Amino acid sequence: MKLADLETPALVLDRGRLERNLERMRAQLRRLGVDLRPHVKTAKCIEVVRRALQGQAGGITVSTLKEAEQFFTQGITDILYAVGIAPNKLDHVGALRSRGADITVILDNVAAAQMVAARARELGAGFPALIEIDSDGHRSGVRPGDAALIEIGRILGPQLRGVMTHAGDSYNCKSVDAIRDMAERERAAAVHCAGELRSAGLPCPVVSVGSTPTATYAGNLAGVTEVRAGVYMFFDLVMAGLEVCSLDDIAVSVLATVIGHQPEKNWIITDAGWMALSRDRGTARQKTDQGYGVVCDINGHPFDDLVVVDTNQEHGIIAGRAGAAIDISRFPIGTQLRVLPNHACATAAQHPAYQVVNSGVEVEAVWSRFSGW
Amino acid sequence: MKLADLETPALVLDRGRLERNLERMRAQLRRLGVDLRPHVKTAKCIEVVRRALQGQAGGITVSTLKEAEQFFTQGITDILYAVGIAPNKLDHVGALRSRGADITVILDNVAAAQMVAARARELGAGFPALIEIDSDGHRSGVRPGDAALIEIGRILGPQLRGVMTHAGDSYNCKSVDAIRDMAERERAAAVHCAGELRSAGLPCPVVSVGSTPTATYAGNLAGVTEVRAGVYMFFDLVMAGLEVCSLDDIAVSVLATVIGHQPEKNWIITDAGWMALSRDRGTARQKTDQGYGVVCDINGHPFDDLVVVDTNQEHGIIAGRAGAAIDISRFPIGTQLRVLPNHACATAAQHPAYQVVNSGVEVEAVWSRFSGW
Repeated sequence: MKLADLETPALVLDRGRLERNLERMRAQLRRLGVDLRPHVKTAKCIEVVRRALQGQAGGITVSTLKEAEQFFTQGITDILYAVGIAPNKLDHVGALRSRGADITVILDNVAAAQMVAARARELGAGFPALIEIDSDGHRSGVRPGDAALIEIGRILGPQLRGVMTHAGDSYNCKSVDAIRDMAERERAAAVHCAGELRSAGLPCPVVSVGSTPTATYAGNLAGVTEVRAGVYMFFDLVMAGLEVCSLDDIAVSVLATVIGHQPEKNWIITDAGWMALSRDRGTARQKTDQGYGVVCDINGHPFDDLVVVDTNQEHGIIAGRAGAAIDISRFPIGTQLRVLPNHACATAAQHPAYQVVNSGVEVEAVWSRFSGW
Repeated sequence: MKLADLETPALVLDRGRLERNLERMRAQLRRLGVDLRPHVKTAKCIEVVRRALQGQAGGITVSTLKEAEQFFTQGITDILYAVGIAPNKLDHVGALRSRGADITVILDNVAAAQMVAARARELGAGFPALIEIDSDGHRSGVRPGDAALIEIGRILGPQLRGVMTHAGDSYNCKSVDAIRDMAERERAAAVHCAGELRSAGLPCPVVSVGSTPTATYAGNLAGVTEVRAGVYMFFDLVMAGLEVCSLDDIAVSVLATVIGHQPEKNWIITDAGWMALSRDRGTARQKTDQGYGVVCDINGHPFDDLVVVDTNQEHGIIAGRAGAAIDISRFPIGTQLRVLPNHACATAAQHPAYQVVNSGVEVEAVWSRFSGW
């Protein structure tokens, strides 16, 4: 089976690039002496996650209990559920734990801590929890210095397993130096809060940090016990715009077919719209706005002059960059193209499977992936 | 089962609103004397589509061959595949046709017409096709007046079944009057091209038009044989911004749970991020930018002062409109909220099922939906 034999749109995964990306992150964290706890929210695919776990301690990070269920069924037991726990999910966590899944939850407030501690007492069961720290102001977490940290730790009591933070604001950094600074800020916030808890006589064995940009550029992770990252497996245009990877590292692309032209407008129409590419426009605020994606030939080589300028549900519109004229006759009806995505997590989520290639057009495997909650 | 018993995020469908929306469109097209061919790309759910087909001729519009497969399996045979046909999909269409599905394809260029005509001759089979007309310049189609129309018609020969157009640019109209004008432009373009084909001695039994805005506000559909529309079943904030519906007509919402607060920022953090809401920001270019969605209580009543201002993959950030201060203590941890989506097609696509309610919080059914290609 070759890419040319597939109905489009379809999601293509280059195994060689994937493995190179995995090895690069492994080497970086080996150098820093810290374990990797891969985040599976990007891949949602056991074949990818097994490769990511090679040479690691074996724990994963999940963003949904569906991910926890799926990977636990595949034999992975050490699972960090890295979204603040809600009351309506605690019984599900308890059921997974009673089946043998060592799930840790996270929380950042007194009410959630009370709920977790109370439910643990009621059930006579453990709900190990990390306290989420806000290292960058972008979303959730207890701020370093906030007295709530110790209060939450005391309420959790025997459920307290440590602290975690995610410098998601690293996605908005304007330079590699800014990412390096963010990595140090992420480390310092987590280590500081771990110290505060320990000074209060509370246990804090786990100090967990991570995002793909900060993990890539961290120079020192002293005091950190594990790093979480997910999109590094595939990379995408947002990461390339941040100089966290190059275009040649991007391992996923959407296979599309030319279905029409609008000669007066210099448009090429394809069958890969926002349903296949996702609505993510993450490069819109970067130096180079990549529209809905960078257009490549079927072998994955980017065309410098083309970009997906607009999408409808099942239609993509390809045009010249910055309105430049292009020769649309180079792309007759039926031509297959590949589109590098803005955001691998969002694009992969639209597809039921990866068509796996290795630097070519031969489909060597089909790896299924899941979605939903 | 009540909404309060569900793990979140989850997609809620209000059956009463759905049925009211279906009846309104039925009444409008009855008044205009034209058949409705519902577009199933929004719902992708047989229970919804069966209701939409009540009192209609029975044909549907699809945006993917997966939709064709799924609904044909459920007994629907008259299917218009309304995305320009690609060579790599024609054999799939042929296989469905040989199983009894009366699938019509569309195309807008000579190369595609040659391919369809050649394949029909090779197989001794029919590939009925409509010629797509460009009535609004927003995407695909042959422009009225373009000599290619007759050339394509002649190449198709016995495969030619008529013309179709979709005034997708109606989504960008700035007033109801502009939508009315667009509806007339859509009608006139299709009817004009049908006349050209007939004058050239070619058959043109089908004259198909449609988009939810133009179908809603069309005043005259003389010469049109069928109307296609899909999002009218559920409606959404983009449609409300166009005055095609009111907020009270929006039948789908995403159930979310409060998992945290950031008091200094006046933020409420929920577990419904862009994975649940979609990345669609379709209201960003409208008069009222609704962020990632309008926040309602669990009964579906909107809060005037709240909006989802940002999202990450599994986190939503709710804040006051235009930075206004809100009392976040009204929304303790565990509070369930419902978010009205910008774009029902994009949001529904993220979910595996509809939790069906009827103006309340009792889940009376779970209707599954599909995705992918």
